Amino acid sequence: MVSSSAAQEFADANLRAKMASLGMAIHYTRAEGNTLYYRDSENREVAVTDFVGSFGSLMFGHNHPEIVARAKEILDNQTPIFTLMLGHSYANEVATALNAIVRRELGTDEPYYGFFANSGAEGVEVVIKHAEFDRQARAAELIAEVEANLEAARTAVADGAVIADDAFDSLGLAAAEGIDGLVAEVARANAEVAALPPVFLALERAFHGKLVASVNLTYNPDLRLPFTRLGPRARFVPSDAPDRLREVVAEERRQVFDVQVADGVVSVVRRDFPVFAGFFVEPIRGEAGIKPVNAEYAREIERVCAELDCPIVLDEIQSGMGRTGTFFASTHIGLRGDYYVLAKSLGGGIAKTSAVLVRERRYRKDFELLHSSTFAKDSFSSLIALKVLELLEAEDGEAYRKAAERGERLTEMLTGLWKEYPDVIKEVRGRGLMLGVEFQDQLDASSPAIRGIAEEGFLGFGIASYLLREHKIRTFPTASATTTLRLEPSIHLTDAEIEKLDTALRDLCALVHAQDDRWLAQA
Amino acid sequence: MVSSSAAQEFADANLRAKMASLGMAIHYTRAEGNTLYYRDSENREVAVTDFVGSFGSLMFGHNHPEIVARAKEILDNQTPIFTLMLGHSYANEVATALNAIVRRELGTDEPYYGFFANSGAEGVEVVIKHAEFDRQARAAELIAEVEANLEAARTAVADGAVIADDAFDSLGLAAAEGIDGLVAEVARANAEVAALPPVFLALERAFHGKLVASVNLTYNPDLRLPFTRLGPRARFVPSDAPDRLREVVAEERRQVFDVQVADGVVSVVRRDFPVFAGFFVEPIRGEAGIKPVNAEYAREIERVCAELDCPIVLDEIQSGMGRTGTFFASTHIGLRGDYYVLAKSLGGGIAKTSAVLVRERRYRKDFELLHSSTFAKDSFSSLIALKVLELLEAEDGEAYRKAAERGERLTEMLTGLWKEYPDVIKEVRGRGLMLGVEFQDQLDASSPAIRGIAEEGFLGFGIASYLLREHKIRTFPTASATTTLRLEPSIHLTDAEIEKLDTALRDLCALVHAQDDRWLAQA
Repeated sequence: MVSSSAAQEFADANLRAKMASLGMAIHYTRAEGNTLYYRDSENREVAVTDFVGSFGSLMFGHNHPEIVARAKEILDNQTPIFTLMLGHSYANEVATALNAIVRRELGTDEPYYGFFANSGAEGVEVVIKHAEFDRQARAAELIAEVEANLEAARTAVADGAVIADDAFDSLGLAAAEGIDGLVAEVARANAEVAALPPVFLALERAFHGKLVASVNLTYNPDLRLPFTRLGPRARFVPSDAPDRLREVVAEERRQVFDVQVADGVVSVVRRDFPVFAGFFVEPIRGEAGIKPVNAEYAREIERVCAELDCPIVLDEIQSGMGRTGTFFASTHIGLRGDYYVLAKSLGGGIAKTSAVLVRERRYRKDFELLHSSTFAKDSFSSLIALKVLELLEAEDGEAYRKAAERGERLTEMLTGLWKEYPDVIKEVRGRGLMLGVEFQDQLDASSPAIRGIAEEGFLGFGIASYLLREHKIRTFPTASATTTLRLEPSIHLTDAEIEKLDTALRDLCALVHAQDDRWLAQA
Repeated sequence: MVSSSAAQEFADANLRAKMASLGMAIHYTRAEGNTLYYRDSENREVAVTDFVGSFGSLMFGHNHPEIVARAKEILDNQTPIFTLMLGHSYANEVATALNAIVRRELGTDEPYYGFFANSGAEGVEVVIKHAEFDRQARAAELIAEVEANLEAARTAVADGAVIADDAFDSLGLAAAEGIDGLVAEVARANAEVAALPPVFLALERAFHGKLVASVNLTYNPDLRLPFTRLGPRARFVPSDAPDRLREVVAEERRQVFDVQVADGVVSVVRRDFPVFAGFFVEPIRGEAGIKPVNAEYAREIERVCAELDCPIVLDEIQSGMGRTGTFFASTHIGLRGDYYVLAKSLGGGIAKTSAVLVRERRYRKDFELLHSSTFAKDSFSSLIALKVLELLEAEDGEAYRKAAERGERLTEMLTGLWKEYPDVIKEVRGRGLMLGVEFQDQLDASSPAIRGIAEEGFLGFGIASYLLREHKIRTFPTASATTTLRLEPSIHLTDAEIEKLDTALRDLCALVHAQDDRWLAQA
């Protein structure tokens, strides 16, 4: 295997050394479909089957001919690529195509407005900004209503209305303070609540990106904790405990005071203040080791968010774009988003782009004047995204059917192995071409070497290393689920490729079952 | 002019409507060098000279043949584009090429390690994360030292050392508290300081991006204030008032307690705590309307940062990549960065990429395991960036010389106009091909129409609209300097293009000078 052999390394030398110690820091020289190629020490091309697919970025595989042809056409036509603040008709065409898909899949006529970014993480940041902008607008509307009510109360008192006995009590005031004291105290107390930072809700083990704000919505404490002083406040809830969600909401909920005048009596009431800016949900958590949210919990999210008027943000960066057999993975659990974030496969494996969709009911058009990016909405990625959407929707959705069918075939093979080797494989999860194979943790392995790598947290990497070295199959565990291999091949996955993985995993399972440690790398 | 005419618009309809009202929402169909083309109502191709250059992203112009050829070569070779966690030798080659340039331009042998991102704003976010990670590591080292000193003091007291009279006073403790009380109070007080969020310093009118953290380092209050509850704390200082910088530093400076044992006496001392995570500086602020930092202030930044051990972050996203005649604009003022951020022209006008350079002295290699991006370090943008760097460095730096020479020629023309029409042009600023033409604000214009557009804050857009409609020249003011046109053409700027701009601006100046308002769009 040929590894990078620069005299000095200036980019991620530390990370590469770790990969190299597992025999995984390969410099691939060519890629096509589900296959990566490298050149061995005798310069022979060696094929590796890629089940990583850049974490779900390659719905149509590496260098799909029609996507490559589109890219070359853009270049051949001398298409203007970066032309800021113009018609941006290509970005608008992408947003239009996405609206057609949303209409078909969600059965709604409500438009979704599109924003564009350069990566999934940037898309999440755009949502965070828009959601906070929207929250502040909602808060301002509420505060303005309260102010109008206070004025009405003042007028009513001047006209002879009385202030209810408990009104002063609820504000901690003496009755002698009168209407002026009451108005001042309500304004003061409300201003205190209005100044609080927003709260974002997210699921435990969620992954929403690694930029400064998005990493604060990413659960993994190793990735997040160093940066909590820099970003928004997030509260994480488990995806299988509705009670815990209700508890967290109760802890974070904030109310402001309002006044009512009825039958000549002014009374003080409490109203919910919009402190929750958004509930971020990956319908299938990829980094968590392929963890789907079930339909029952989806209903709970809907109930809580409706009660709080909290927008639902569906992070479909990895799960969307047809990978699970529908355009959005959330469609399977009937969960509708106020926001959707797409990226990865939207760029067709060549370009970098992210689309954010905001439903009309939540959309604040002034945000367009606040947010922009030099590189976003470029023609290169927009025209490639259009081609990707065209490929997805072609032949009445053949690509979605293929994702479902290939996924079923792959799941069938993996489930067979799981049944055969329950002492090696703990679970097979996921949907369509977004699958996870969780291995038993081997912390009680009788083989000291296997137990050793398990204790170091490198079992998944050890398995990936074996599959690559011995079977020329590329897989990866995730940083947050180190014993789960995440499988996200393209829809062009062949039966032969599935059989190749079957053979490789079967060999591995037999070795682990026998507690034979010869599959471990000699690093 | 043909504008986008989609039946419904789903992307930035509000923004586009504003541009359309100025006749500027043109859908360009072809681009080459400094020229954009659109098709008029009779389908004839109309050429527009582009002085915007996507805000400095087009050092070599639109669709430069060698860069386009490189892009097609990448596609023809079926180059693996997204292959995470591998050798990434192309990204490493970019980092290596950048190190060679740094060595040449800064005359240093200290390596700069490279991180990659997908946009300039993402690059800034990477710096914010790394700088905070580094700050916490420095803080932890300091706190560990203090803890060791406390232990040493405790041992010394056990061995008969006395505690200085004023030690308890400085902690607000009674002497009866003894060494245990002293140790506990130092630990408590220090923990309070250590929990404080970091402070980032930035210049007034700075622009560092619009993602959640980066927008908090961007000065423009309209862009920033809605998002201050989400991001890091920044303090802004003017670039021409060293005293104000010292004041802000004094306000934000925090100290922790430490103890010393000397001659059998334990005393309490104060030490600076690393609360400053970084000082962000654009050597020439682009969005501010082309505002260069002068050498004198650069010395002040150096002095203050050395005193605080605060890293200097040079945001060269727009000013770097040779635009000012040297690779970094900061080279002209002799300012060296602990960090550099590059983007825009690094992508060659086709790809989206950003490189962050961190000098070895500040580099924390564990950060490699914390930060990553699916799209960053991709082969497509890395190989294009390599071609761009090759073009820059070719023929012993001919591109830099050209940027300087073309910039001088353009400045000469603009300065001539300024001298001729000081009532219309207020100032010509900048260096190389990063120039600003500031117009007199016309708030006292005798023409009511001209005064009207000036009062609305649209004078710059009005001028840009005129230049486009009547002279087929594309320019833009900035959001933060609405009366300044920012000129950032490619190095292939011809004498004819400079003359075309001369003619256009001369016509405009004559009209404004005569307070003739017929140049205003009839929107």
